[in-house]
Amino acid sequence: MANLEAIAPGATIGILGGGQLGRMLCLAAAQLGYRTHIYCPEPASPASLVASQTTVAGYDNEVALSSFAAAVNVVTFEFENIPAETVEFVQQSVCVSPSMGTLKITQDRLAEKQLCQALGIPTAPFAAVSSAADFAVAAEATGLPGILKTRRMGYDGKGQSTVCSISELDSAWMTLGAVDCILEGIVDFEIEVSVLFARSQSGALSTFDIPENHHRDGILRESRVPSRLAGAALETARDIAHRLAASLDYVGVGAVEMFARKDGAVLVNEIAPRVHNSGHWTIDACATDQFEQHIRAICRLPLGSTARAFNVVMANLIGDETDTWRSRLDDPLTKLHLYGKSAVRAGRKMGHVTTLSPIAPLHDPE
Amino acid sequence: MANLEAIAPGATIGILGGGQLGRMLCLAAAQLGYRTHIYCPEPASPASLVASQTTVAGYDNEVALSSFAAAVNVVTFEFENIPAETVEFVQQSVCVSPSMGTLKITQDRLAEKQLCQALGIPTAPFAAVSSAADFAVAAEATGLPGILKTRRMGYDGKGQSTVCSISELDSAWMTLGAVDCILEGIVDFEIEVSVLFARSQSGALSTFDIPENHHRDGILRESRVPSRLAGAALETARDIAHRLAASLDYVGVGAVEMFARKDGAVLVNEIAPRVHNSGHWTIDACATDQFEQHIRAICRLPLGSTARAFNVVMANLIGDETDTWRSRLDDPLTKLHLYGKSAVRAGRKMGHVTTLSPIAPLHDPE
Repeated sequence: MANLEAIAPGATIGILGGGQLGRMLCLAAAQLGYRTHIYCPEPASPASLVASQTTVAGYDNEVALSSFAAAVNVVTFEFENIPAETVEFVQQSVCVSPSMGTLKITQDRLAEKQLCQALGIPTAPFAAVSSAADFAVAAEATGLPGILKTRRMGYDGKGQSTVCSISELDSAWMTLGAVDCILEGIVDFEIEVSVLFARSQSGALSTFDIPENHHRDGILRESRVPSRLAGAALETARDIAHRLAASLDYVGVGAVEMFARKDGAVLVNEIAPRVHNSGHWTIDACATDQFEQHIRAICRLPLGSTARAFNVVMANLIGDETDTWRSRLDDPLTKLHLYGKSAVRAGRKMGHVTTLSPIAPLHDPE
Repeated sequence: MANLEAIAPGATIGILGGGQLGRMLCLAAAQLGYRTHIYCPEPASPASLVASQTTVAGYDNEVALSSFAAAVNVVTFEFENIPAETVEFVQQSVCVSPSMGTLKITQDRLAEKQLCQALGIPTAPFAAVSSAADFAVAAEATGLPGILKTRRMGYDGKGQSTVCSISELDSAWMTLGAVDCILEGIVDFEIEVSVLFARSQSGALSTFDIPENHHRDGILRESRVPSRLAGAALETARDIAHRLAASLDYVGVGAVEMFARKDGAVLVNEIAPRVHNSGHWTIDACATDQFEQHIRAICRLPLGSTARAFNVVMANLIGDETDTWRSRLDDPLTKLHLYGKSAVRAGRKMGHVTTLSPIAPLHDPE
């Protein structure tokens, strides 16, 4: 694609999806002087509370989508499970970043793994499971126990199941709705990390420092920077993200979740074509955060410096953990972020806290 | 005042005034999970573009003010020239921070100077000018040349005039509308600085590092941190701000503009009972910025750390200087802030840029 002109501040950025990622994108866009327009089916979404404008309509509502597309200067999305048809429809009249092609690959765990394979990037062993006829061959390819995952629409540990035998594979597949699945071998990893990368329309690449991630029940609980990843593994992880971003002709910020093994090997787990929970600490610790970096990339501005000013521990506030907000503030170096969600539900991400600590001794006011 | 309970996130913060200070307060409030409600007479104000809700109505519209007061949990203001009657009316039904008493003193240059005098805090020599009969006595008290300023409603160099003789004083006073004025002696200062302070409802005090400010045509152009102020003068400046804040029973963030003389003396120029242009760099350089700190104070949360992670130069983008926005971004450590104002006018603050540089060598991503 030829280099296009920058989208100047004052323009309106359309965002498909109204969750906390959209909310934090709106705040970053506003700082740069952009307006934002949220499109999502839910009324009073976290993002719409801070957006310049909101359209509440279904992702299949072509009349509403047409008006939305006509009212904005560029479109992005804040979660990857936006129906591909929605993006396909919108991109007929306005540029969508990341692209349709990127979205299609990253919506499909199998296509994602195959892309890695084609680039020679290690992943867990995997095999497609589309019918009962695939069980034996798949189990042979990955070994058991393995993890059966739906190819599409999974997130936060949803749509997956650990299986130890062919009969468990059978019943897990039925439980998942007998939809297209992927069976993945279990990786004996030491650390989970993610590489948050940004790629500009002109192909410039940038990454943030690599966080180490801790999950519970499939949900991210904590990210720490610096991670325990060291030496060549850091370079390998960064290089993998750069190669994936380049091969997807990616525009925007994305995240590659990876497993790091004790032997120094780094395997791709999955690619998120969007700003990512494991990058929330960048708001408080970096010269440019992931949300601003994404806005810069999709508006064709130069990428900002990702220099990091603090060591951090970012912890999600999930469900009623949000009730602890007040005591968190007893530490003056803990930053509270709440998403404006009124209903507290078990497993729901209500906010996060980032606790800062000095890299070098901090400069306190004289 | 007894210690009141914290205003929990989810509550709505009412802000009188819709300019860029209100806008940046809204963004900080949203990060903490608060909603915001802007009240101002102008439609499509910079703040209303990012607020949860806006009331567009005059400051004397008691019906609109009543609805506003009923819809919010606490009220603050983003400029000090809000009519005192407006604040008086609103505070009958909802807490306003900073208080009515603070506002009244800081709206009046004479009352402000008298407060300093009562606390033994140095200022320029000054005298009230309320009628032609005051000219000779005032000029005797301050010496000439001096600066004649309206006691109320001045900002960005408006409402003031340098005078070198009694006859100039006469004509300047007529030009200013023959309103209540103050004549100030000219201070031979070396540096202009400002102390950004925060005071919580429980009396806790905090300051940011002290910026050195450069004005042109009465408008702030640039703030630099660290300033050239050093040693005992730093302590003196901070102590002055703390004493003023305590004596006003101040709640929120405020700024005290000061003149520092070559002999080490520090004189108060004026007090702004609000977040301040010379503190915008805190957004990009501090663990907690002035806007978040203000929200914390008025919502009775603990104050955050003001630790500074970068050296900074903040430059305002005034009038058509905003057209340079794109080239500013060629430096990856320059942070662009635009206020969403559509009409560019000479002298109008359209945005600002903060250029970061390392205090110690920066930690770049590995």
